[in-house]
Amino acid sequence: MTAQPPPVGQAATPEQPPLERATPEIEQRITASFERQGLMAHLGARLAHIGPGRVHISLPHRPEVTQQHGYVHAGATSAIADSAGGYAAYTLFPEDTAVLTVEYKLNLLAPARGDHLEAQGVVLRPGRTLTVCRLEVYAVEGDRRTLVAAGQQTLICVPDQPPA
Amino acid sequence: MTAQPPPVGQAATPEQPPLERATPEIEQRITASFERQGLMAHLGARLAHIGPGRVHISLPHRPEVTQQHGYVHAGATSAIADSAGGYAAYTLFPEDTAVLTVEYKLNLLAPARGDHLEAQGVVLRPGRTLTVCRLEVYAVEGDRRTLVAAGQQTLICVPDQPPA
Amino acid sequence: MTAQPPPVGQAATPEQPPLERATPEIEQRITASFERQGLMAHLGARLAHIGPGRVHISLPHRPEVTQQHGYVHAGATSAIADSAGGYAAYTLFPEDTAVLTVEYKLNLLAPARGDHLEAQGVVLRPGRTLTVCRLEVYAVEGDRRTLVAAGQQTLICVPDQPPA
Amino acid sequence: MTAQPPPVGQAATPEQPPLERATPEIEQRITASFERQGLMAHLGARLAHIGPGRVHISLPHRPEVTQQHGYVHAGATSAIADSAGGYAAYTLFPEDTAVLTVEYKLNLLAPARGDHLEAQGVVLRPGRTLTVCRLEVYAVEGDRRTLVAAGQQTLICVPDQPPA
Repeated sequence: MTAQPPPVGQAATPEQPPLERATPEIEQRITASFERQGLMAHLGARLAHIGPGRVHISLPHRPEVTQQHGYVHAGATSAIADSAGGYAAYTLFPEDTAVLTVEYKLNLLAPARGDHLEAQGVVLRPGRTLTVCRLEVYAVEGDRRTLVAAGQQTLICVPDQPPA
Repeated sequence: MTAQPPPVGQAATPEQPPLERATPEIEQRITASFERQGLMAHLGARLAHIGPGRVHISLPHRPEVTQQHGYVHAGATSAIADSAGGYAAYTLFPEDTAVLTVEYKLNLLAPARGDHLEAQGVVLRPGRTLTVCRLEVYAVEGDRRTLVAAGQQTLICVPDQPPA
Repeated sequence: MTAQPPPVGQAATPEQPPLERATPEIEQRITASFERQGLMAHLGARLAHIGPGRVHISLPHRPEVTQQHGYVHAGATSAIADSAGGYAAYTLFPEDTAVLTVEYKLNLLAPARGDHLEAQGVVLRPGRTLTVCRLEVYAVEGDRRTLVAAGQQTLICVPDQPPA
Repeated sequence: MTAQPPPVGQAATPEQPPLERATPEIEQRITASFERQGLMAHLGARLAHIGPGRVHISLPHRPEVTQQHGYVHAGATSAIADSAGGYAAYTLFPEDTAVLTVEYKLNLLAPARGDHLEAQGVVLRPGRTLTVCRLEVYAVEGDRRTLVAAGQQTLICVPDQPPA
């Protein structure tokens, strides 16, 4: 899973040029929820993009997020991928609802080196009850972007709950 | 999972215009292996496209492949998705090797109606040992294509084995 | 994925002695639905056990269900695993509902040799909307049972639909 | 997971009585690697059990690991599940090797409330190259244990790499 030839037939898209932004109301809703996620602050993650059906989250590579070889831990990679997909779905949900992750699957494709990671959650199939997202995580080092994880996630729309 | 609003932020690409074809040697290798899969013949599936890192398989909608509501059974959908991904990986493998599915995950996104299904397997990350594919299955009815399943698959390259 | 040492710490349970049976009403409901699945008949699969939250389906090893090396195709293995899990969930659903597969993930652990396969679907977590099942598939040759596939599946309970 | 009656609506096994411990050499190897995982320390996770093909990791419920409703974030749940499975596999690997996660899939079954979480990784199928683990995460509150996540993971054995 390391030091392998460069991707062929790669479905990963390096960086789409002009990303659409969500409305201010939706940006505010996502940001407010994100700021209540203690884990995101603790890891040092931040929202990098909020668009309709698409959210990006970035995570600086620090010792606090590593595994035993010094790469970013699959758990930290998963955490930002899960949040990116969850918020991507949430941008499409009606008011007074909340989003919960039903399940996800993630392939770790390459060591998560680099200066920071960027997780991209994109809605593949929206729905009244269930929404399915595609998850991609890139390691970014200067101009170089490497796809380090890819997966798929199922989310459910539930009535809103007051913050605990 | 039915009668839902149209996909937003959909990663599904309706039909890429000019698909690259694999070399005749690789086409022959894939075709020969496909013809040894008793299940594909029994289901009525056929190879629809062989490109480098990409294979499509189509399956006519017949009573023999249905579930209890008359749609195509998730098992038949899976069977052509699994073969499409396996052969997509196999197009990139060296000679004297074989391909085995390690695991896959598939979301069933919509009822598999239509005249026939088309499964698309695309290599997302090739590797000497492990290869990861993206799987998509479309239901096709005339000009209309609906994404009915999407998933991800891990394959392993092993030394070739003589047919049993 | 072949010719590997015997399982250690294996969670697979060879054969639990006395399996509880579902009520006659539930057995009848599952059987009637199963008989409407054209794919199950076409593959030669049959219901082997119906219990509360647990369904087994067996599949004889015939050339019609094989892959290129003569083993049972992952698609056939998946088909019976998916149906076993779906019906396991369905045994716990209220009347006038139907079951749909949301998604599943399956690891192919060993070549599916043997006289027949037995897929076991067991409810891990029931729910009003979503139910999660564990899936196991064994290859059976005389007294010998080998775990050849294991996975996990998410199902949704929807209002019943009339047969198509 | 043992010789127990068929779980209906719950595979959660409260607490198997006498868990076998790994050899001191293996305990030391796992512990040394765990201590190099910056993320585990940063989250406050600790090794709770090391047995042959089985590792448990516990995580206190603190604000630093929460999502927006105050439950433990799926990313933190995943992180300890991934490490538990990885180290469960690693207990069976030969010396001078390292373990990498190929992929995993996790269902979030219930809100991760409680005093702390306990992740259990158990080897389902060991292999020279690939090992498959079952993952379970329990929320623990006094005597009460609730299964909050369940999944499956594929790991690969690679030659050891010096710490970065």
